[in-house]
Amino acid sequence: MTASPARLPIGIFDSGVGGLSVLDAIADRLPAENLLYLGDTARLPYGTKSPETVARYAVQAAGHLVERGVKMLVIACNTASAHAMPALRAAFPAIPVIGVIEPGAAAAVAAAPRGLIGVLATESTVGSGAYLKAIKDLRPDAEVRQQACTVFVAMAEEGWTEGEAVEAAARRYIEPILNHGRPRPEVLVLGCTHFPLLAQAIAAVAGPGVALVDSASTAAEAVEAALAAGDLAAPVGRGTVHFMATDSASRFGRVATIFLGRPVAPSDVEIVDL
Amino acid sequence: MTASPARLPIGIFDSGVGGLSVLDAIADRLPAENLLYLGDTARLPYGTKSPETVARYAVQAAGHLVERGVKMLVIACNTASAHAMPALRAAFPAIPVIGVIEPGAAAAVAAAPRGLIGVLATESTVGSGAYLKAIKDLRPDAEVRQQACTVFVAMAEEGWTEGEAVEAAARRYIEPILNHGRPRPEVLVLGCTHFPLLAQAIAAVAGPGVALVDSASTAAEAVEAALAAGDLAAPVGRGTVHFMATDSASRFGRVATIFLGRPVAPSDVEIVDL
Repeated sequence: MTASPARLPIGIFDSGVGGLSVLDAIADRLPAENLLYLGDTARLPYGTKSPETVARYAVQAAGHLVERGVKMLVIACNTASAHAMPALRAAFPAIPVIGVIEPGAAAAVAAAPRGLIGVLATESTVGSGAYLKAIKDLRPDAEVRQQACTVFVAMAEEGWTEGEAVEAAARRYIEPILNHGRPRPEVLVLGCTHFPLLAQAIAAVAGPGVALVDSASTAAEAVEAALAAGDLAAPVGRGTVHFMATDSASRFGRVATIFLGRPVAPSDVEIVDL
Repeated sequence: MTASPARLPIGIFDSGVGGLSVLDAIADRLPAENLLYLGDTARLPYGTKSPETVARYAVQAAGHLVERGVKMLVIACNTASAHAMPALRAAFPAIPVIGVIEPGAAAAVAAAPRGLIGVLATESTVGSGAYLKAIKDLRPDAEVRQQACTVFVAMAEEGWTEGEAVEAAARRYIEPILNHGRPRPEVLVLGCTHFPLLAQAIAAVAGPGVALVDSASTAAEAVEAALAAGDLAAPVGRGTVHFMATDSASRFGRVATIFLGRPVAPSDVEIVDL
């Protein structure tokens, strides 16, 4: 007798703790689901690594989730979504794999009536052109400007969500794409799961006419749709969350507490070796 | 007939490109030496990783240099020097291994007549207490204050060496250890090889009464002394420099150009798989 696949957890993978914003949105929308989160904290950040390395690391990490038994993989990392989706789908053909770029692009297009969209992401995600392609697939006449914001990742991990340094970094990154001699973007996509933590400073620089969108809530919608399509939704009940990381439970707990806004103790985090 | 060990290169290892400041100091002081540099850019930064992971990665990377043939290992990364020296000396007992912490501590003690010393380093180096111990070994009555400065690493890698964001980050990190209700430090140790790039902003916050010291030039002195002690100095001539990295030659070249102040092309960088 084998357990029904619907009772298996959803595996959520990120390079570190940023993907907890996606986990949070999924837990809100789908409270009956069991969630198994793996942050590859030993090898983060992915955002400055080459496409080949990102894909190799993502397949290793996802493989660990698959060995544990999951009914779906959510790639809650924009950089991994940008570079590893074909490799992940090839490696795990029997399991639905959901990334965050397509949901983020859909949210941006929906929020930009004139198609003027700015994308803030990691160096590697910008280099992939994945947002550009996903947005153009939905709206071919969209005007997209991209900006890599490497320092934002370190600031979010440090728990710097506001203050002078964050505001100055936001000005340095964002003003060039706002003041470009062409119409301002209507929307800025927070194309890295760390960036929602800095949303207040980013919004202050962008000004009132610019909406911020992130992929967490639209990714949760995509997960719900894929569960329904595969007849994989969990029975009614209260799901559990299990955290795993590849390094340093104490750091994971500390930064997760910032991301989730509730305490995560080091003893809540299982360390795994990939 | 085997080549004389003196003709072998010195192997220099860092988590990324920060150690190029140490390479530069060694090349200045010892121009006849051949230098073989390996930056573990696929797995950087080390400064937020656990001691065990740092030691494991450092031994793997040093092993690659030893396989290539080196007469000495220079650990040009404060975090690896803080956590991996015993493991490295055990793994490679036949080769002298020089770290950067003891030279940095010696420079700090020499520059602080009253023994008032601040240490700016990565989270992992601060956690190790390695600077504290090395300074106290030289001057037991020293008063040492430490500050982890994680965001500085990302800023240096981004090429942000000055400007508002750097100054605001420097204020956020450094003012608490300056204004501590006790005498100000006489010296701030730049206890991460990335931090010399931000020296101007750090000095502006620290003020004129505080000297900055880094371990690059004192590490080069330690290398010279160890070469002499082992009768390993290269014959007179002009040495070569060979760069290796574990990921992304283009990013290595771009950031190395910032660190060395001279162009390093992606084609100058050999990619290796550890």
